[in-house]
Amino acid sequence: MVRRTGGDRDGGGGDGGSTVTGAGNPDRSERPSPRTPAENAQLALLLEVAGTPKPGNVDRARDLSDLRFEHFLAGAVGSNEGLRRAASGAPVGVAFERSVRGMRHQEGGNTQFGCLLLLVPLVRAAAAGDLSPAGAADVVESTTVADAADFYRAFEHVDVAVDDPPENLSDLDVRRGSDAVPALRERGLTLSDVMAASEGDGNAAEWADGFAHTFDVADTILADDGPAPDRVARAFVNRLTEGEDTLVRTNHGPEVAADVRRRVAEARGDPERMAELAEAFVAEGINPGTTADLVCAATFVALERGLSV
Amino acid sequence: MVRRTGGDRDGGGGDGGSTVTGAGNPDRSERPSPRTPAENAQLALLLEVAGTPKPGNVDRARDLSDLRFEHFLAGAVGSNEGLRRAASGAPVGVAFERSVRGMRHQEGGNTQFGCLLLLVPLVRAAAAGDLSPAGAADVVESTTVADAADFYRAFEHVDVAVDDPPENLSDLDVRRGSDAVPALRERGLTLSDVMAASEGDGNAAEWADGFAHTFDVADTILADDGPAPDRVARAFVNRLTEGEDTLVRTNHGPEVAADVRRRVAEARGDPERMAELAEAFVAEGINPGTTADLVCAATFVALERGLSV
Repeated sequence: MVRRTGGDRDGGGGDGGSTVTGAGNPDRSERPSPRTPAENAQLALLLEVAGTPKPGNVDRARDLSDLRFEHFLAGAVGSNEGLRRAASGAPVGVAFERSVRGMRHQEGGNTQFGCLLLLVPLVRAAAAGDLSPAGAADVVESTTVADAADFYRAFEHVDVAVDDPPENLSDLDVRRGSDAVPALRERGLTLSDVMAASEGDGNAAEWADGFAHTFDVADTILADDGPAPDRVARAFVNRLTEGEDTLVRTNHGPEVAADVRRRVAEARGDPERMAELAEAFVAEGINPGTTADLVCAATFVALERGLSV
Repeated sequence: MVRRTGGDRDGGGGDGGSTVTGAGNPDRSERPSPRTPAENAQLALLLEVAGTPKPGNVDRARDLSDLRFEHFLAGAVGSNEGLRRAASGAPVGVAFERSVRGMRHQEGGNTQFGCLLLLVPLVRAAAAGDLSPAGAADVVESTTVADAADFYRAFEHVDVAVDDPPENLSDLDVRRGSDAVPALRERGLTLSDVMAASEGDGNAAEWADGFAHTFDVADTILADDGPAPDRVARAFVNRLTEGEDTLVRTNHGPEVAADVRRRVAEARGDPERMAELAEAFVAEGINPGTTADLVCAATFVALERGLSV
């Protein structure tokens, strides 16, 4: 992997932060985006939270009681260091743990853990010049036991809603954080293995399946028209009607998750009903966060492929 | 100036982007903010545009016709590289030109030129461990002819509304961009000299006066309570009643600028009248942008001094 400094005429900054890998250099390649992969990942985090309406989620028009818009802004700012490390070729686990550690420096708690779990391998793939299902799968397959250990450490920074693991995997409950690392090492589990064992989690499913839904949703965002945040909101609503949100299922069970799909499908296209649904979801504590994660990752792919802002 | 890598246990990112100067390292100093100066500057850009209502400006609740919220999000993302260079000790002109060059990668045009003109020297001062009027004045006084040349080059990236210069300074019209550099060199003008000659510009006045209003407004933000974006919006409204917005005067003349102050003072505290005023200002093409720049810079100072988000 070739590293070089950016193409700036001055080169005087001296912080080296403009070094990117291969095709990631916007000044010298033909990539359509004027931004680096790390910059597009940060912009995806910001566009995701700006898109409205996204029923049940914080967006430009709505806050939750203890989770507000500015917490996501600060989360996106703090994530940047880890995302730049991912673009520079740092191990996926290191980059992810660092991005979560920066993200949590705000008072809202877990704002973007799931988004970052999808973004970090995609940024790695983009920086390596192959942002495709195959390129993303290569990144996943290259993960190590050390990456898995850093993934577990990241859970110590924020509270993440997860299902209980199967009984034979209780020593690998992610909520154990670094206490689970000896068990990881003993079993020789890579981060890819850990994701493959995480049944019923939408983000883990993306890891295991070459980010298939992420790339599909990116295509719909690129095929859509209008301002980027409006495309993001439409992608969110459409995706929510197409696939169960696994965070809703974790928190409320499969029947509520199915009900959410139906209610969103019925309200789609009617701004007044969508607004009512947004209020109702907040009142019922329904937060389709995994769908938001997926749309954030898809927005990153769309930006890399030329979505303009 | 001592440079060192951040205090991360892994240190494996290899992009060097976490190097900051002296007191800027959040892991090892007693600075109250969990973020680096460059991160706080980026967050200030985001909080500034998020605060609402800010009559006449884009904010969380309002877009202008061709200038939308997401353009400011992308501008904040693109500014980051230059802001990090400022924190790493790059010359003010280099850091400013780079931040503007990154900022303009969005379709809204000039979103944050004025904010960056204030933020860059303040970030430098913060990274050097003296974010105070004296520390900011030191940064201003240390600027060179090369900084002035980079400042002029930055005008080639975006259209910036400025007054005509005095006749004896027409060869130094900033709109000439790098064509004015020979004249700068011949006269031996530093960036500090250029700012001192920019009569009637609110941002240049801050440069010339140790950022006095910036630090004053930061104090009011810190003394206020409630969520950060609400404090930002209140600071904007209050400042707009206290001092003429020089962008409004440049675009509409001193009578309109005085009228804006009066109308905002009358509407202050009445959400309905403030909303009407926001609509009216947009209809009249009134954009109090210099006040927004000042409040953005003040938000940075407040974040550095412990404003939590």
